[in-house]
Amino acid sequence: MKVVEFSQLGNPADVLQLKTLPERSPGPGEIRVQVLATPIHPANLLQIAGQYAAAAELPSVPGGEGIGRVIETGPGVEQYQTGQNVLLAGVGGTWRDEIVAPVEGFVPAPPGDIEQLSMIAVNPMTAHLMLTDFVDLKEGDWIIQSAANSAVGEMVIQLAAQRGINTVNIVRREELAFSLKALGATVVVVDGPDLAERVHAATGGADIRLAFDAVAGDTHQRMIETLGYGASIVVYGSLSGKQPELNLRAMITKDIRPRGFWLAHWYQTANPETKQAAMAALVPLVASGQVKTKIDSRFPLEEIGEAVTRAAASGRDGKVLLTPTHH
Amino acid sequence: MKVVEFSQLGNPADVLQLKTLPERSPGPGEIRVQVLATPIHPANLLQIAGQYAAAAELPSVPGGEGIGRVIETGPGVEQYQTGQNVLLAGVGGTWRDEIVAPVEGFVPAPPGDIEQLSMIAVNPMTAHLMLTDFVDLKEGDWIIQSAANSAVGEMVIQLAAQRGINTVNIVRREELAFSLKALGATVVVVDGPDLAERVHAATGGADIRLAFDAVAGDTHQRMIETLGYGASIVVYGSLSGKQPELNLRAMITKDIRPRGFWLAHWYQTANPETKQAAMAALVPLVASGQVKTKIDSRFPLEEIGEAVTRAAASGRDGKVLLTPTHH
Repeated sequence: MKVVEFSQLGNPADVLQLKTLPERSPGPGEIRVQVLATPIHPANLLQIAGQYAAAAELPSVPGGEGIGRVIETGPGVEQYQTGQNVLLAGVGGTWRDEIVAPVEGFVPAPPGDIEQLSMIAVNPMTAHLMLTDFVDLKEGDWIIQSAANSAVGEMVIQLAAQRGINTVNIVRREELAFSLKALGATVVVVDGPDLAERVHAATGGADIRLAFDAVAGDTHQRMIETLGYGASIVVYGSLSGKQPELNLRAMITKDIRPRGFWLAHWYQTANPETKQAAMAALVPLVASGQVKTKIDSRFPLEEIGEAVTRAAASGRDGKVLLTPTHH
Repeated sequence: MKVVEFSQLGNPADVLQLKTLPERSPGPGEIRVQVLATPIHPANLLQIAGQYAAAAELPSVPGGEGIGRVIETGPGVEQYQTGQNVLLAGVGGTWRDEIVAPVEGFVPAPPGDIEQLSMIAVNPMTAHLMLTDFVDLKEGDWIIQSAANSAVGEMVIQLAAQRGINTVNIVRREELAFSLKALGATVVVVDGPDLAERVHAATGGADIRLAFDAVAGDTHQRMIETLGYGASIVVYGSLSGKQPELNLRAMITKDIRPRGFWLAHWYQTANPETKQAAMAALVPLVASGQVKTKIDSRFPLEEIGEAVTRAAASGRDGKVLLTPTHH
């Protein structure tokens, strides 16, 4: 079987190698799974480059989620049958064409769009949890987000629209407005001076109770000015590369509540019932295509260099998927 | 009657004036109260100087709390009798020797230490609310605070000790340790490099769940390093004059939660039952002297210039009280 691996940190296109390992049959309690699709996320590239909050143990196989098909079951495995699709949930190291691992690393996949389901556990789950875990939002409420055209941002728009929640979406380029509105965005604004005034005008002075910020820096400060009393601003990235100042005046006089969000920790610590409930809320929407993650391109494992280069390219429009097995 | 007033912003000792106004009898629903004691707080001085978050409407009489004695009741007033002590709670403009105002601006004072009760509504209430409104603390839990020898800091120490909560107290000078430990401080540390390591050593690696910061700047960043996963850090001042950076790494990887606290807003928005419950929790401790605010000195209204100069002096050890009426 083929595995993508890195044994030193560096530029992903340089340090990733495709290795061939001997095949093996599943042992007791294990299943053997053909990988159908597994996405390349920015966090994967950061970890390979040594720039992620959690360091990889070397050598390491990247990849945190995907979908596969059971091709062999080990002794004592009764909950899975050959031919059944499974989500690669927690098994880790998914950039390979086959995985043999204990059943605990998988979740039965529902029928539905295989490629969309291969990407459910990271970006849609981030959007879902940020929309549910910080503020009790009701239909008609308003939220605001930066990096609105990112994979998480577009999923926030779609999940919010499903619930009748209004979104203010901050982008860097005016021409993104059309596609975001097609996804269900209520308001799209271009980042820059007078952001708060323009948001106020576009929303009719709405009381914005929750913000998602993946940019940090000056955008973070401008977003705070758009918020209502007691609002939370959840930071889940810093694309600008700049740390904002803590806005003490806004925290003290407007009770603005800065928070962080890290999906990896949620997967490590949430109890199984909580995880199942979150997945149960998301799966029907994703499997049916009611919410979608854009796909830019697909690559076989043999083209891993091209794949990670494309995933890091600025002109990319959607996720890059590895599709190790023709399906 | 005599009133301290400022009609322009500036250095308090320069702009405050003592004026004499004609006396008047209380109208329907009003009482006339002799002011016995009213404290000078840093926030008063900042507002007179025009440096406070909420601007004063000029001309303005400073002072937000105090205690007085009813000397006359207006028609229809049955809940107060002449000779009874009352807290000046919400009446505003307390730096005067007499107040005539509707009964809603007062609260019956319990028997007990008059000077301590005159200062209950600001610093002890701040300490009480910060200890109750952010994290559900239990006996044996740990908190940490900067400016531990401030009036609020010393009240935090005493209220926490009453509840069996352990306190780590950050000070700038080693010699403060003795007096803070006498108040009930569990650990006292001097601010500076390696703060987190020293706190870890002094507490046996305690999981610190809540921090109160009145300093901001570098102290704020050092405090964050001492905190456990999911801890809240409540900022209620910025004595350093420096805004800290938002620590995105700590917010995302350790779920550190920065919050602000502003007592004035709580008084404006909390419902009457909430306020009564908070006061009921505090009053027995303050009236009985189980918790105490240090008093540096007392001045009559005629020495208002000396009083505010002393209140702003660095060598001050406790609150400066105005005592308009000999009692």
